[in-house]
Amino acid sequence: MHAHFDAAPWHPANHVALSPLSFLKRAETVYAQRPATTCDGISRSWSEIGTRCRAVAAALSARGIGLGDTVSVLAPNGPELFELHYAVPLLGAVLNTVNTRLEAETIAYILDHADAVLVIVDPALLPLLDQAFAHLGRRLPVLGLDSYEALAAHPPMGWALPADEGQALALNYTSGTSGRPKGVIYHHRGAYLMAMGTVAGWSLPQHPTYLSVVPMFHCNGWNHPWAMAVVGGHMIFLREVTPATLLGAIARHGVSHFGAAPIVLQMLCEEAAAPFATPVKVLTAGAPPPPSVLEKAARLNMEVMQVYGLTETYGHISQCLWQEAWEALSPEGRADHQARQGLAFPMAEEIRVLDRSSGQDVPQDGLTQGEIAVRGNTVMKGYYKDPASTSEAFQDGWFWSGDAAVVHPDGYIQIRDRLKDVIISGGENISSVEVEAALYRHPAIQTAAVVARPHARWGESPCAFIELRDGMATSEAEIIAFCRDRIAHFKAPKTVIFGPLPKTATGKIQKYLLRQAARALGEQT
Amino acid sequence: MHAHFDAAPWHPANHVALSPLSFLKRAETVYAQRPATTCDGISRSWSEIGTRCRAVAAALSARGIGLGDTVSVLAPNGPELFELHYAVPLLGAVLNTVNTRLEAETIAYILDHADAVLVIVDPALLPLLDQAFAHLGRRLPVLGLDSYEALAAHPPMGWALPADEGQALALNYTSGTSGRPKGVIYHHRGAYLMAMGTVAGWSLPQHPTYLSVVPMFHCNGWNHPWAMAVVGGHMIFLREVTPATLLGAIARHGVSHFGAAPIVLQMLCEEAAAPFATPVKVLTAGAPPPPSVLEKAARLNMEVMQVYGLTETYGHISQCLWQEAWEALSPEGRADHQARQGLAFPMAEEIRVLDRSSGQDVPQDGLTQGEIAVRGNTVMKGYYKDPASTSEAFQDGWFWSGDAAVVHPDGYIQIRDRLKDVIISGGENISSVEVEAALYRHPAIQTAAVVARPHARWGESPCAFIELRDGMATSEAEIIAFCRDRIAHFKAPKTVIFGPLPKTATGKIQKYLLRQAARALGEQT
Repeated sequence: MHAHFDAAPWHPANHVALSPLSFLKRAETVYAQRPATTCDGISRSWSEIGTRCRAVAAALSARGIGLGDTVSVLAPNGPELFELHYAVPLLGAVLNTVNTRLEAETIAYILDHADAVLVIVDPALLPLLDQAFAHLGRRLPVLGLDSYEALAAHPPMGWALPADEGQALALNYTSGTSGRPKGVIYHHRGAYLMAMGTVAGWSLPQHPTYLSVVPMFHCNGWNHPWAMAVVGGHMIFLREVTPATLLGAIARHGVSHFGAAPIVLQMLCEEAAAPFATPVKVLTAGAPPPPSVLEKAARLNMEVMQVYGLTETYGHISQCLWQEAWEALSPEGRADHQARQGLAFPMAEEIRVLDRSSGQDVPQDGLTQGEIAVRGNTVMKGYYKDPASTSEAFQDGWFWSGDAAVVHPDGYIQIRDRLKDVIISGGENISSVEVEAALYRHPAIQTAAVVARPHARWGESPCAFIELRDGMATSEAEIIAFCRDRIAHFKAPKTVIFGPLPKTATGKIQKYLLRQAARALGEQT
Repeated sequence: MHAHFDAAPWHPANHVALSPLSFLKRAETVYAQRPATTCDGISRSWSEIGTRCRAVAAALSARGIGLGDTVSVLAPNGPELFELHYAVPLLGAVLNTVNTRLEAETIAYILDHADAVLVIVDPALLPLLDQAFAHLGRRLPVLGLDSYEALAAHPPMGWALPADEGQALALNYTSGTSGRPKGVIYHHRGAYLMAMGTVAGWSLPQHPTYLSVVPMFHCNGWNHPWAMAVVGGHMIFLREVTPATLLGAIARHGVSHFGAAPIVLQMLCEEAAAPFATPVKVLTAGAPPPPSVLEKAARLNMEVMQVYGLTETYGHISQCLWQEAWEALSPEGRADHQARQGLAFPMAEEIRVLDRSSGQDVPQDGLTQGEIAVRGNTVMKGYYKDPASTSEAFQDGWFWSGDAAVVHPDGYIQIRDRLKDVIISGGENISSVEVEAALYRHPAIQTAAVVARPHARWGESPCAFIELRDGMATSEAEIIAFCRDRIAHFKAPKTVIFGPLPKTATGKIQKYLLRQAARALGEQT
């Protein structure tokens, strides 16, 4: 390199740590009079939010919170939790949002593992926290949200950025479907780029009206609390979240954007009486939405974009970008395309589907499965106090997702399964997700889950567990025939069991219990 | 800090150098079949552009170009120059786009100072380049754009990112209104963030149709060639740029976005016969647009946003964000607000107006002048081989713009003048820009420039130089009275001179010549 280009060192004027704090610092001035939050009829401007966040930070600092301290929060979405997304990192402290639906024992494990120095709690969740402390055998300092306004009345401190953009910002525990939850460390650089990339990838305009549905204890609400400050968005919070209150808020506030799990989308679709007056842009993730839900959402004037990501990737890193050619397809054909996880968001450097043994990309044939591997600045720093799991996740220059996927000829990736959920029958991989999508098209089916059952000849065969809608009836033979009409015969369930499905506190189906149940059925012949 | 948070080092999977190269690498797949460029009836997709850029890079590499080498380009906007914005940096080389309107002597100075190892030239500009070589006393290796397609046919190389995101990306020379041009070093990190911030701040949707008007030798076309890859935009290039061809292209291609200097906007407004069918979003910068131009543009269905920046800040860093309250204002009142330079873009960390002696912010009174000081990741690395100028520009943690401005009560900044263009009369600062804006409202005035003339009592007084429109006539007394009706009496010109104004090769009025002329008039009494 020509030596002259290297001569100039960085200077404070041309190198500033990337941090989402900068977005609120700017919004406080640029969007000063615009609404930032509304909840319970109380609206606050970006100027007020900026002052309040700096006040809360100062109040926490006065309580001794500082650089590298973990502040845990056990609360549902609300303006207070939103503000803590800025107030805690402003101190250099680390925000640990805890899933309020977890059982007390797991909460105890998280608070202990996270080295929480303070737990901020919604008063309604104090009994749960007390149970967690009982499991823990000790109490931690607690601050009830009922005294939050006293923090917000503290004289505010000024803005300060981290000295190092790699500084820890948040600590988010995985759902722990296969063991103890792991603590995923987010850093300031990653959250800055996640917010910018979300604005670009979701085409967020100035001043979107955003309905807060995604729990902030999931990937900090997919990092949207930070993205909203970039564009001066207006965040609508509901204290009581039901399909009816969500629909009411969308209409009343003119909501333009929200993110939600497919199950929430499904409930909204079932509750809605008429299409929305103006298009509502929706990101959905967490599981591939059943095509039937996508079809219904389109009729209700929702522009749904399926996205994909993990806690370890700050939320969504791929997006199913709409293609004009799809407009010529049938509603069902469109929905099939929209159920794919798509292509990289702008801030995601690389998302590839690799054969792990060879390290090579799988062919773009929509058939060959590989593992999704990710590289980019919105990948976690690592797992907290867990170097073994960190090393296992980071290998050969990639973060390995553990998700099995195919790549279609147009480059769109599609999740087939968590690797451990793949059913291997006669040497063929069967995606439980694909079988479930076929099942969800059946009008009598409320919930479906497919796992492997031992099979004498094929090794494994698909076994479906099904919850029917109220008042509906069908039979095993009819379900099997229904699937064989829609997917390859070898993929159709060979066993169908009706009854309620076991679910976690967060509503995820506990497939490991179903796998046990399928094994208990014995080998099929 | 809690030691555990520091334990995890960066990993190749979670720390990738920020570089605009990543945008094309992604666009090549994500927007594969979407149009990227159109010129002379030839359209190319993002997939083709990706391949071509990698091919051109490989061809240049075969010619020995590599890390830290300066590649100068003397060419007007076109798809080739656009592609070189990716091909040259892919080699780790540095792109030096040279203003094609400069005189040969200055081009010789730039090529020499930049240590150019290759000059890529449009064949039509070969005579100019030969003159430059004559001034230089030596010839440099030359590659004519007429052989560009041979480069694009080379077997392409693969993508590679810089090892260090601070690596030099481009070298852009200032216009040199006050001495020799200075070489401004852009780095990969800055251009990445400039592109992301432009998408967020200008609310660029997916697939804008962008008309290339801003010369790419000005701040790399305000970094738009990199921003377009983020959103899969379609760039329209014209070989012949006139108001008529621009208007034709806007209608024919359905242009949704462009950037242009106020003088170009003015010419379009004068040429346009009817409003555009759909809104066209326009960024304008380089000089405050006269309110009369903003009024006309609005009637033509152009949504004009005034932005502000310098070569040293990669182009625009502040934006005059539209406020809903302005809709209630008269067209003139709206235009007055739109002529302000506004508030920080999302990627600009801080733009402040400071009293340089005290380092304090000026009051937000719309009256008190200070100097615009900037801090952020889109500030140049420094001036090439000019540590003295670099140190002078970077002081006390700021980049000092040399621009005098005020801050309005709503926080919007407004440029009053280049510091050296301020007229100090009776101890009061008079902004030459403010006086010029008043003059531009006069129907007979085509061009106006105001400078200081020595004054016996007040020290200095405003002296106006005016070009009249064809066939129009007025008088010094009428002009002075016209201004006194619109601005404070002490700000109105005390001298008015009619005649053609001296301009640089790039069309900028040469105020230093007018200052000489005003001084030559002698002291006013």
